[in-house]
Amino acid sequence: MIEPNMATMLAFITSDANIDQQLLQRTFYNAVARSFNRISVDGDTSTNDMAVLLANGASNTSKIEYGTPEYQIFTEALVLVTTELAKMIARDGEGATKLIEIAVNGATSEDEALKIARSVANSNLVKTAIHGEDANWGRIIAAIGYSGIDLDPEFIELSLNTHPVLRKKYQIVIDEEVVQKSLKEKDILLSIDLGRGSETARFWTCDLTRDYVSINANYRS
Amino acid sequence: MIEPNMATMLAFITSDANIDQQLLQRTFYNAVARSFNRISVDGDTSTNDMAVLLANGASNTSKIEYGTPEYQIFTEALVLVTTELAKMIARDGEGATKLIEIAVNGATSEDEALKIARSVANSNLVKTAIHGEDANWGRIIAAIGYSGIDLDPEFIELSLNTHPVLRKKYQIVIDEEVVQKSLKEKDILLSIDLGRGSETARFWTCDLTRDYVSINANYRS
Repeated sequence: MIEPNMATMLAFITSDANIDQQLLQRTFYNAVARSFNRISVDGDTSTNDMAVLLANGASNTSKIEYGTPEYQIFTEALVLVTTELAKMIARDGEGATKLIEIAVNGATSEDEALKIARSVANSNLVKTAIHGEDANWGRIIAAIGYSGIDLDPEFIELSLNTHPVLRKKYQIVIDEEVVQKSLKEKDILLSIDLGRGSETARFWTCDLTRDYVSINANYRS
Repeated sequence: MIEPNMATMLAFITSDANIDQQLLQRTFYNAVARSFNRISVDGDTSTNDMAVLLANGASNTSKIEYGTPEYQIFTEALVLVTTELAKMIARDGEGATKLIEIAVNGATSEDEALKIARSVANSNLVKTAIHGEDANWGRIIAAIGYSGIDLDPEFIELSLNTHPVLRKKYQIVIDEEVVQKSLKEKDILLSIDLGRGSETARFWTCDLTRDYVSINANYRS
């Protein structure tokens, strides 16, 4: 039961940054949107997540103002922290053996990229294929296809663990032996390029295993 | 990989009815919409379904016309056949041990009822709970909650295998022993009443099992 949309996670982050409360809240909201709200174990939204960020200003530096280089550094550090925490949750999903990152590029909007990433991340067939260390990339393409985004498949490019699989105009370029071997890693990267824009989104999930079923079917016995 | 939206099923149905081709097509389309397109094993849309209905008129009765009692009988028979075939597919899902029917009533539209039924049907947590014969009705309520339909939970009623679980105004009336025992059946009925309209939808799925994972992770080895 993990797909925070702020729904079974409690995250507490502290900082000694000197920063205005409203700016901190906005910055944190954006960081959470791109980290904790971009992971899914099974698509079942969890029921009581929260994330809290406290900054007490004890650094005694001058105040961090929006748009400054200091703000940029603070934001990047915050996104790094929330993203690493979020990935730890996905990696620790019930019965999981692998962390799967889905990176969607070339979208016309971030929302479009996110819808496609989420569709692939929540596909039981993709997640069982990765569990089986099987380069069944057709399942990824199918999940893109039923995402609800109307797009031209001719422009889709796909790589698994940085090894090219599919290039524009339906060119299948996979070296199955190389890809299959790379799927033995614990960290799997699915890169999808839609070839129609410049927007991107990343999303993290885990493989679907027999242990996931055991844990969720028999947790009371 | 089963969730026809006319996507890995080939269905051929024959009839000796004497009926106009256009009316037959329309009737069949409606029957398919409420049967084959209302089942899901894992939410992964299958890729090459089709359904064909042939009627050769060999019955030598007079032509079946829209709106007549004969048309009504023909339609009901057709929906019965397609529904029974669809249920056989869901029951036969990879690794499945149980057929789950989700009946949604009291909706403001059929589309609303269908969205909620589909959300519950595709919840891995609901499907593993049913596999574990566990009356974890909170997972059903959660899947209704994240269906995307904005509704007031106060009016939701829920029963499992016709045994009341939840009544309006959050009254929990479940007799856990009785319900738990009934979940040992092979056919499971989840009845949801939204308490805000008169529209309905039914949807069928199966439980999620360790064998589902084995079949889809290791089918090439």
